[in-house]
Amino acid sequence: MPEQNLPKNNKNNPNAGLLLIGDELLSGRTQDVNFPSIARFLTERGVDLCEVRVVSDDESDIVAAVNALRARYTYVFTTGGIGPTHDDITADAIAKAFGVEIEQHPQAVKMLHKLFEANGVEANEARMRMARVPVGGELIDSDKIKVPGFHIGNVFVMAGVPKIMNLMLEAVSDMIEGGAVVLSKSVRIEKGEGDLAVPLAQIQDQFPNVSIGSYPFHEKGCYGANIVLRGRNEDDLARAFKQVEALV
Amino acid sequence: MPEQNLPKNNKNNPNAGLLLIGDELLSGRTQDVNFPSIARFLTERGVDLCEVRVVSDDESDIVAAVNALRARYTYVFTTGGIGPTHDDITADAIAKAFGVEIEQHPQAVKMLHKLFEANGVEANEARMRMARVPVGGELIDSDKIKVPGFHIGNVFVMAGVPKIMNLMLEAVSDMIEGGAVVLSKSVRIEKGEGDLAVPLAQIQDQFPNVSIGSYPFHEKGCYGANIVLRGRNEDDLARAFKQVEALV
Repeated sequence: MPEQNLPKNNKNNPNAGLLLIGDELLSGRTQDVNFPSIARFLTERGVDLCEVRVVSDDESDIVAAVNALRARYTYVFTTGGIGPTHDDITADAIAKAFGVEIEQHPQAVKMLHKLFEANGVEANEARMRMARVPVGGELIDSDKIKVPGFHIGNVFVMAGVPKIMNLMLEAVSDMIEGGAVVLSKSVRIEKGEGDLAVPLAQIQDQFPNVSIGSYPFHEKGCYGANIVLRGRNEDDLARAFKQVEALV
Repeated sequence: MPEQNLPKNNKNNPNAGLLLIGDELLSGRTQDVNFPSIARFLTERGVDLCEVRVVSDDESDIVAAVNALRARYTYVFTTGGIGPTHDDITADAIAKAFGVEIEQHPQAVKMLHKLFEANGVEANEARMRMARVPVGGELIDSDKIKVPGFHIGNVFVMAGVPKIMNLMLEAVSDMIEGGAVVLSKSVRIEKGEGDLAVPLAQIQDQFPNVSIGSYPFHEKGCYGANIVLRGRNEDDLARAFKQVEALV
């Protein structure tokens, strides 16, 4: 069963894959919050997030996932594993995925010396490991970021700590090309999905470029579904939405 | 770049992959809560969760992910896409992944008739779509579950609505074989990771069957790292932990 690894048809719109790296996510000890932040960030910029993967701090797993995702999507984002400890192996794995060496990046060295001096801590070997970037990579640059994230090819390598990840994401904004933003409209309908299914499918058939999702809820003795319409054509979206609203 | 698709060496312990299905997760509109629940469930049963993927409601994406994961791990769990509306395509995709037909499962038909009768709703065609199970599949069975989830081969197909997913997960407990539970110990150290890196790496080298993770925190002017040790050998874990505690 060879994995389907062809570039995803992106209908002229940029798309993305996301790779979350960390044993602590897979053990259930830590709940990831970066995925929804990145999902919203990309949606706002018209970049379709098509796939997310979570893998452990294992080099071969990271290499395999990065290579699968970077072949398939316009952009790949990774979070986690770029700190100073032995379990931080993301930068090395990315170098391996790209088949390049890894070395200290002069700008990252400068950035870290400044940080360690300000914090009054020693720029020891472990801390300076954070300055290592795969050859050909460039820093994710911003005045607000004090530790190095980097990008190489179409892969953006960011921190796992949400506060730092969010600053990096903000800086990435200028480095990627967005697309036509997906517009969305939603309505809450207090009817069972089983009663909505046929008319919704008919509306979906009529508007192939509008994606209609039905998300059921059950709360306080009340049940129904939130119907979410998404699309890039405003007119079609409005016309489809009018038909869905008539189901309320 | 062919994807690495070999069975993951599980060191005689069962392992698992998880597939979350749904456009609404990828758009950032809905935040998944099933992943951490399933991660904790598996950890408690000694099953290593090795990989998670999130894909959209797209048949070829679901088929590719299911086939990649089921070849690699002892168990695969999926959530989402088993309701009655047009965007619920998981059961069909699983049938396609296994190369089998899909048909109404007699036990599922019975289950749904009972539910619809109790709720006073019509057992219409859309609702009865939920009774369709890939040929060879069996229901995830429990008195508490009122809608059909199923398993086929090593793949367990569950609902996306967390309340229902949790009931299905409980029922799955008797259907899977657990392993030696991973023991863990953790300690909070208020020192920078850069100062802990060298001694932690030395301890890690000494105890290859203990996995030592370092998770930094910054809060209220205080910083440090939570060091988490995980392993299946109690003695080694205790010995490694003693050395880590000495770093406090």
